[in-house]
Amino acid sequence: MATIDLNCDMGESFGAWTMGEDEAMMELITTANIACGFHAGDPVVMRDTILAAKARGIAVGAHPSFMDIYGFGRRRISGERPEDVEAQLIYQIAAMQGMAAALSWPITHVKTHGALGNMAAVDQDLAQVCIRAIKAVDPSLVFITLPYSETMKAAEKAGLRVACEVYADRTYDDAGMLTSRQMQGAVIHDPNQSVDQVLSMVCDGVIPTTGGKKLPVEAATICVHGDTRGAVDMARALRSSLARHGLQFAPFATPNT
Amino acid sequence: MATIDLNCDMGESFGAWTMGEDEAMMELITTANIACGFHAGDPVVMRDTILAAKARGIAVGAHPSFMDIYGFGRRRISGERPEDVEAQLIYQIAAMQGMAAALSWPITHVKTHGALGNMAAVDQDLAQVCIRAIKAVDPSLVFITLPYSETMKAAEKAGLRVACEVYADRTYDDAGMLTSRQMQGAVIHDPNQSVDQVLSMVCDGVIPTTGGKKLPVEAATICVHGDTRGAVDMARALRSSLARHGLQFAPFATPNT
Amino acid sequence: MATIDLNCDMGESFGAWTMGEDEAMMELITTANIACGFHAGDPVVMRDTILAAKARGIAVGAHPSFMDIYGFGRRRISGERPEDVEAQLIYQIAAMQGMAAALSWPITHVKTHGALGNMAAVDQDLAQVCIRAIKAVDPSLVFITLPYSETMKAAEKAGLRVACEVYADRTYDDAGMLTSRQMQGAVIHDPNQSVDQVLSMVCDGVIPTTGGKKLPVEAATICVHGDTRGAVDMARALRSSLARHGLQFAPFATPNT
Amino acid sequence: MATIDLNCDMGESFGAWTMGEDEAMMELITTANIACGFHAGDPVVMRDTILAAKARGIAVGAHPSFMDIYGFGRRRISGERPEDVEAQLIYQIAAMQGMAAALSWPITHVKTHGALGNMAAVDQDLAQVCIRAIKAVDPSLVFITLPYSETMKAAEKAGLRVACEVYADRTYDDAGMLTSRQMQGAVIHDPNQSVDQVLSMVCDGVIPTTGGKKLPVEAATICVHGDTRGAVDMARALRSSLARHGLQFAPFATPNT
Repeated sequence: MATIDLNCDMGESFGAWTMGEDEAMMELITTANIACGFHAGDPVVMRDTILAAKARGIAVGAHPSFMDIYGFGRRRISGERPEDVEAQLIYQIAAMQGMAAALSWPITHVKTHGALGNMAAVDQDLAQVCIRAIKAVDPSLVFITLPYSETMKAAEKAGLRVACEVYADRTYDDAGMLTSRQMQGAVIHDPNQSVDQVLSMVCDGVIPTTGGKKLPVEAATICVHGDTRGAVDMARALRSSLARHGLQFAPFATPNT
Repeated sequence: MATIDLNCDMGESFGAWTMGEDEAMMELITTANIACGFHAGDPVVMRDTILAAKARGIAVGAHPSFMDIYGFGRRRISGERPEDVEAQLIYQIAAMQGMAAALSWPITHVKTHGALGNMAAVDQDLAQVCIRAIKAVDPSLVFITLPYSETMKAAEKAGLRVACEVYADRTYDDAGMLTSRQMQGAVIHDPNQSVDQVLSMVCDGVIPTTGGKKLPVEAATICVHGDTRGAVDMARALRSSLARHGLQFAPFATPNT
Repeated sequence: MATIDLNCDMGESFGAWTMGEDEAMMELITTANIACGFHAGDPVVMRDTILAAKARGIAVGAHPSFMDIYGFGRRRISGERPEDVEAQLIYQIAAMQGMAAALSWPITHVKTHGALGNMAAVDQDLAQVCIRAIKAVDPSLVFITLPYSETMKAAEKAGLRVACEVYADRTYDDAGMLTSRQMQGAVIHDPNQSVDQVLSMVCDGVIPTTGGKKLPVEAATICVHGDTRGAVDMARALRSSLARHGLQFAPFATPNT
Repeated sequence: MATIDLNCDMGESFGAWTMGEDEAMMELITTANIACGFHAGDPVVMRDTILAAKARGIAVGAHPSFMDIYGFGRRRISGERPEDVEAQLIYQIAAMQGMAAALSWPITHVKTHGALGNMAAVDQDLAQVCIRAIKAVDPSLVFITLPYSETMKAAEKAGLRVACEVYADRTYDDAGMLTSRQMQGAVIHDPNQSVDQVLSMVCDGVIPTTGGKKLPVEAATICVHGDTRGAVDMARALRSSLARHGLQFAPFATPNT
């Protein structure tokens, strides 16, 4: 019987502001990517989110971003030196790692956020920056990346352990990349098609593409959105469907307590 | 022959802005307290400062603050829950510790900055917050504190190692506290008097007070200012004078590389 | 028939984060105090909030704060020079005034936020800072203040027009100040008592105090909370009750379009 | 006898940090572009800079930026909606305008900063955003723009008054654009060549290009750098040379006090 991880971005509240329904979502997922204070999150939110995850046995990781609270890390930022972005990532991963260790619930992984993640997936230099930052803090951390991305290639080349992340509700092109949201059919609205795609990726190890290809993939984790309207219901429905088809759920890596 | 440490706040530049003359000051000091990004400093400044210290064998530590970039951590901030200030300190110390470890130059200590430091020195609850934060990240870290302060008392009670910090250019009252800057004679302008006071504190283990008392003290480090006009010249003169009187200089704790 | 204004803090979202239910609340109030970007709000939120108010004929004003996004302006901040706080207020009021004018819906007033408002109400120097800032930008602006506060006294002495703000759900002590929330009976939970208190203040011009006194007051506006759970329902119930007792609702000042 | 304006970015200190030598530079220039708090500057710095300019009769204007204190507005930011960038510009211009008016030294103009300025110069949509923002606050403001840029074209089409800005130390290509700094010969190091270029642009109304062309230009202001090493000496030398060749110096627009 196949086992898969469900990961979701968490801890994206900030100061007086709340984002998402972390408590409800935590009942459904197995791994939480926690914002590190650069696009969202703050020390208090980080602590509370780590403790909430620990109470449920959910694995936690750092979810670093460009330094951009106002833009929630979604603004595409360029013009910084690669080594400076690397320092920003080291800072965030180290802060999260240290806080999680202090709470006896060590982080297992890193997943980059928003514009940084999107840009690194297709930019070799930025992908290298991410790899170097993770290795500098702790080379045993797992890096959640998209299949066929520059980040995945760079991680494998560098000997960094990777958790390959797939989407239930997005189609893939023949290069193995997510179809652009601007394209018709980029988002899968039919729950059955969504479940079929996941089963194909998790059980058969292939991504069905819009061009009719079947690309090999070692799916380790499914990305579940937490900050959209109806996110909890969608995640619950997906998890139920997958369970009915025999999938089991567990973190791709367990906190080393 | 007595040995003493000279500590100075470093890495207080931010983004495009420069503060102080860190390079020159590093030729004179033995321990650097490095800003963690909450009142000054950013990941790039932190990295550069740690590397500059490492190149000279200078011990480094975290210099955390209230979250207050605009006010440089000098604004007195109240109204936060103690456990939330604790989380802010854990975040900062962890970020600095992780980055320093990644650069193979581990931190040795923590010194609180500005308004946070001033308030914790006289507030038992805030002193406890500092102690808990340091112990949560790494109980082997040394805490730089003022003699006779609430922070020193709390640290000793908690079994945290303390480096007692004294001033060459400030007078002390009979309670062992720094005389208020509003008082006449608070600042020592006579270099000879300044050297005498340090020799008394370091060699004889007593603080001469404005009331004529001699209070016992185990001076471990002398605070040297880095961001005032003429700071480098003053530090150089002090070090020379102390050296002529036979003092030697070394960090109170050595990085555990 | 007596007329009264209902004011509420609005536009306290920030970047990707939402605060309160501004749209629903705007159906009930007559004056909106809009955050200026220092404790909440940003240029986009300000624009959207001004336009939403304009569409409903709701008067708008600046709601300035200490510079403290992380703390939502609730942290008590001291140690700044009065003239520097004044500059911060001028900046915020000017930004809001200019943007509102650009949208052809000029601001009518200023109400200070959170810790700044609380501190200025009992601190003559800080009260003067507020007065000077408002007069510097536009002496025709109305200042919303609490009765018997230092801000009200300073405003009247300076010839600044004042809108005296009263609470439906808070009791008053014999000095005319809000009873501390730490005291039993500080918050009025009985809707009838709440309505009675408003009618007394608006129609009879007296504040009933906890000591049994009746203090004179020229109530111009009632403060309605927008960011608590059930805020919209509470505001709707209050407005309905007051309407049944014959009160009418209108802004204390109309935008000078 | 020809008259020209010398403009320089000013007020780019922030909180505890100082940038540039504004006082010395103000003895040499005739127009100051003052940071508005989004890439540098804060309300206190703005006030002090406006007052220092007023004391010398120097015209002042708003120098708005992307929202990016950490990156000093030099990071290229994309992914925001045009109308949201417009709101950010309106906020900044309004804040500066209101504060300057409060100090009885009204702003005369707007000049965009850093990455925003560079991007708007070659992007029609972003150029339109700038035009709309200026007109929304005050259509009588002058817009400092580069010749042959998208911003200049958009401003002229929209009927906005323009001050055409030229460089003494940069060469121009045949399209009238600044030669890229990556190209050899982009920066003019020979003071005589620098003066010749300015005289050509100001007195003859033509830009000599690297391709040997002479492009028409109505030069209104020369950009003088303030934040580089030796900036004051360079500005002084340029001004002296130009004065010896008979040029006179005055703001392109006078504050309407």
